[in-house]
Amino acid sequence: MTQSEPIRVAGSTVILTLRRGNDGRALLALPLVRRTREPFAEQWALPGGWLTPTESPVDAAARTLAETTGLSPSYLEQLYAFGAVDRSPTRVVSIVYWALLRQDDVTAQSDAHRASGLAPENVQWFDVEQLPTLAFDHSKIVEYALWRLRNKVGYSRVAQGFLPEEFTLAELREAYEAILGKHLDPANFRRQVEAAGNLVPTDRFRTGSHRPARLYRDNTDIELADRGPLSPEETSTR
Amino acid sequence: MTQSEPIRVAGSTVILTLRRGNDGRALLALPLVRRTREPFAEQWALPGGWLTPTESPVDAAARTLAETTGLSPSYLEQLYAFGAVDRSPTRVVSIVYWALLRQDDVTAQSDAHRASGLAPENVQWFDVEQLPTLAFDHSKIVEYALWRLRNKVGYSRVAQGFLPEEFTLAELREAYEAILGKHLDPANFRRQVEAAGNLVPTDRFRTGSHRPARLYRDNTDIELADRGPLSPEETSTR
Repeated sequence: MTQSEPIRVAGSTVILTLRRGNDGRALLALPLVRRTREPFAEQWALPGGWLTPTESPVDAAARTLAETTGLSPSYLEQLYAFGAVDRSPTRVVSIVYWALLRQDDVTAQSDAHRASGLAPENVQWFDVEQLPTLAFDHSKIVEYALWRLRNKVGYSRVAQGFLPEEFTLAELREAYEAILGKHLDPANFRRQVEAAGNLVPTDRFRTGSHRPARLYRDNTDIELADRGPLSPEETSTR
Repeated sequence: MTQSEPIRVAGSTVILTLRRGNDGRALLALPLVRRTREPFAEQWALPGGWLTPTESPVDAAARTLAETTGLSPSYLEQLYAFGAVDRSPTRVVSIVYWALLRQDDVTAQSDAHRASGLAPENVQWFDVEQLPTLAFDHSKIVEYALWRLRNKVGYSRVAQGFLPEEFTLAELREAYEAILGKHLDPANFRRQVEAAGNLVPTDRFRTGSHRPARLYRDNTDIELADRGPLSPEETSTR
């Protein structure tokens, strides 16, 4: 084996949120950064950057995400390490992390970033159904993240990622419709959610233009993230 | 950021099999390689080695596994990328893959390796309950792999990994007892397996010293590995 040609390590992040489109429908969206340098100059890419010698991959992913977008998720989960030989013009292994963010957190963190005067103009949120052509293999990475999201088991984890602390079953169903990309029957959805036992009904109701709808919260007895025996340095941001 | 201090990329593998201990109990076991060089010279470590510029991480993991142990699993799944700053005296990111192997495949592949005259004498299988102190953070990696194995959902996947094509419910239960490290009630186990619907009863029976036991096989309608939209180069050996 040779060590003459360097293999470099990068970290990238897929940050997903749920936002309301112009037609009122809930849609998955993610932030992209327009590249200012070759390769793929001017093309959109996932937030990310090089791993430095003194930081762990998750710290590099969190740092470059904060630098470019101002976003600081409380938890980044390792999605996958992408290392195909031809995924970049030079040899780069990318360790990709992902997080689900609530829309109000996205708004608050983005506003703070803009107020700091540091916010670059080359960051933009895109609906996942209308993504531009991405640099490198980032289209495949996003596709993989969406596939993993659709396959995440249980209702509670996705609800905790995208929704406020208390939410109606209609709001939860909208989140699932956005993730799965299909309409769900409200009555069947209610039955499945109640059978799963991951939600706790509260005594509060959402009132407004419709008839009052009961608010639910997640059953916090169930762990959100299954870190297992991994050390914090290997898994999460602080 | 600096690119002056190199960050190197390695691949390692956790290969798990089920074998019968001296007391007749089924036990999880894995192959380790005794290191011949510093750091951690003379200590046991997971099979692995450096990623070269012309191969993907999974190819590097498969190559170094074959070179050291002669083992060639048909499928390696990415377990996790370990990259903590202090996990090695020099800066190394290890992309770790894992596979479950049937004991008869282990025997056949190991015998062929020995017959080739290439088999090194510094490879040995250890019961996971009696592991020596491992080099680097490899003890933590094994602990994480065992945790992931215990959390793998569904009966069929583990059965397909460890057992022959047709197996009795007692053999399946023994595999689960080895994985979970506890005794399982045979009647409850049978009920759970039948309710899960992942097994197909055959018309054949295992005969021998006990009363004949029906042989089952996995329901192959259920995918063994959830690769999703990942390309083969990112996921598997060929």
